[in-house]
Amino acid sequence: MSAPADLFLRACRKEPVPRPPVWLMRQAGRYLPEYREIRRRVDFMTLCTTPDLAAEVTVQPVDRLGVDAAILFSDLLVPAPAMGLTLSFVPGPVIDPPVRTRAAVDALESYEPEEDLPHVYETIRILRRALDGRVPLIGFGGAPFTLAAYLVEGEGSRAFGHWKRMIFAEPHLADALLDTLVVSQTAYLVAQARAGAQAIQLFDTWAGLLPAADFRRFALDPARRVIQAVRAAGVPVIYFALDAAHAWSAIRDCGADVVGVDWRSSLEDAGAALGSGYALQGNLDPCVLLSDPDTVRRRTREMLETARGAAGYVANLGHGILPDTPVECAAAFVAAVKGWSG
Amino acid sequence: MSAPADLFLRACRKEPVPRPPVWLMRQAGRYLPEYREIRRRVDFMTLCTTPDLAAEVTVQPVDRLGVDAAILFSDLLVPAPAMGLTLSFVPGPVIDPPVRTRAAVDALESYEPEEDLPHVYETIRILRRALDGRVPLIGFGGAPFTLAAYLVEGEGSRAFGHWKRMIFAEPHLADALLDTLVVSQTAYLVAQARAGAQAIQLFDTWAGLLPAADFRRFALDPARRVIQAVRAAGVPVIYFALDAAHAWSAIRDCGADVVGVDWRSSLEDAGAALGSGYALQGNLDPCVLLSDPDTVRRRTREMLETARGAAGYVANLGHGILPDTPVECAAAFVAAVKGWSG
Repeated sequence: MSAPADLFLRACRKEPVPRPPVWLMRQAGRYLPEYREIRRRVDFMTLCTTPDLAAEVTVQPVDRLGVDAAILFSDLLVPAPAMGLTLSFVPGPVIDPPVRTRAAVDALESYEPEEDLPHVYETIRILRRALDGRVPLIGFGGAPFTLAAYLVEGEGSRAFGHWKRMIFAEPHLADALLDTLVVSQTAYLVAQARAGAQAIQLFDTWAGLLPAADFRRFALDPARRVIQAVRAAGVPVIYFALDAAHAWSAIRDCGADVVGVDWRSSLEDAGAALGSGYALQGNLDPCVLLSDPDTVRRRTREMLETARGAAGYVANLGHGILPDTPVECAAAFVAAVKGWSG
Repeated sequence: MSAPADLFLRACRKEPVPRPPVWLMRQAGRYLPEYREIRRRVDFMTLCTTPDLAAEVTVQPVDRLGVDAAILFSDLLVPAPAMGLTLSFVPGPVIDPPVRTRAAVDALESYEPEEDLPHVYETIRILRRALDGRVPLIGFGGAPFTLAAYLVEGEGSRAFGHWKRMIFAEPHLADALLDTLVVSQTAYLVAQARAGAQAIQLFDTWAGLLPAADFRRFALDPARRVIQAVRAAGVPVIYFALDAAHAWSAIRDCGADVVGVDWRSSLEDAGAALGSGYALQGNLDPCVLLSDPDTVRRRTREMLETARGAAGYVANLGHGILPDTPVECAAAFVAAVKGWSG
């Protein structure tokens, strides 16, 4: 079924569309043999920071699966070195030393995105030429809470105890760190829009770790400030807080164009809690794609049924695609959305 | 402040109490020096299966912190060997080979709890004598969904992809496994009540991984069947599903006496979603106890304020206490509840 090239952007803006657009979080990644082939030659950090290569893997799922949007190949921690931090991937991101004191927060460097992270913007420019209007390009970055979680913890964690200890015991220090990240992430993402990204997704992967009573101050408010500034640059913004069903009443005030819903909540419940102001994106359980094409098609159709009431709707997974996903299951997901007649 | 020895049981049954009772999930554990001292001598599995030692560590937090209930020292996977499975701790639980096929499900052995796991019941009898009415003894076990998650996955996991693949692609096989576990966990827990456990907590640690649409069939219904049978044995039951704010409408039908609330949801939101039929248990963020006694006291008082409306209420953490918690913070939590004047 042919569809307009701007299907995704129209759905983000809740304009009428002939069918829902579809893309997959982490659609460029290890489940694709052509991605693994490149990763045999270069490490993850090199891939992120080498424009020709980052652009190549960004386009791979567009060619292979026929998704309706490309998303910049990058990582939430890519801006860390520009802030004076030491970043490595082993294979998860590590910040060493981590940012745990007033002195460490004060020492974070401000930077000029285009000057200090030129590879990000060069990748975007290459991609706009390479995609040539075929599908829109999504840029992305971490919401302040989630970026702070990595900076304070120094690495991924189940409980993020260092970061949460700071929030509970030194809330004003946490505020100061978040304020710094609001400024830097705004600049980082506005520059992506100026370089050619046609939408921005703000990932708040760890926001769901916050108790409901703390969500507004430490996750929602910082995210909202970034969202407002990026929207003012003229592109739609998707806010995706993972595991945040306890905080829908706060997220209702995020001010984005689209709210991402993880696989836990039903799209009806999320839509009811968020009101009619937002398009929704999501939310097939990525584990469904570990099964078989028939199961994927059935569960995708069920998801599309539940999305019917959404004012705008972008079909996606409810979290990133898993590395051991069979490509045929990813393809079945995309085909099921594109073939849906409602 | 002195309080009746059955404060905890009265709160579970929503009877009037002079103050909320308090205990901590995983209150016997690595944060206590006297526990670490014993663990220097014996490994985890030996500790779980040696009645005198398991009873000793069960009583440690009662002596040290003055909590209002003791909870049997054990592990969710303790019944696995009686089902013919090979269990080890490295340090997390490992089931090798895991249970992934119809043949493996059919091969699970039924067992007689008192005959095949005598150490569990001997520990309970020792504890009832040792506690001598000071505080009630809570027994516990895994809900069928969560036990199945470990059996199919073979170990802890972030996504539990093997188990969820079975649910999505072979739902009838998942049902069969859950049916088997409903029967065995019912026998295992009813026997705990008969041996002297005065309440039972059913842990559904991984239920929150399920999409809302699947929660009722694969988590709630099996748990409800176990809960019903254990309550018929005359003891109150606490159902604790972690990370399940998207599934309150299903949990509302669990039929337990008490519903545990993790640290994410506010007690008001949980209470409103669950209706007035349940006492609530929870829900201080365990990371608050990584801070300092002043912060712990402040946050505990805030939690107690939000619990005011609960028909019955048991103060607790919103998940297990973390190993690197300072003992003085655990003590401050218990003291803040016991000293609360409302």
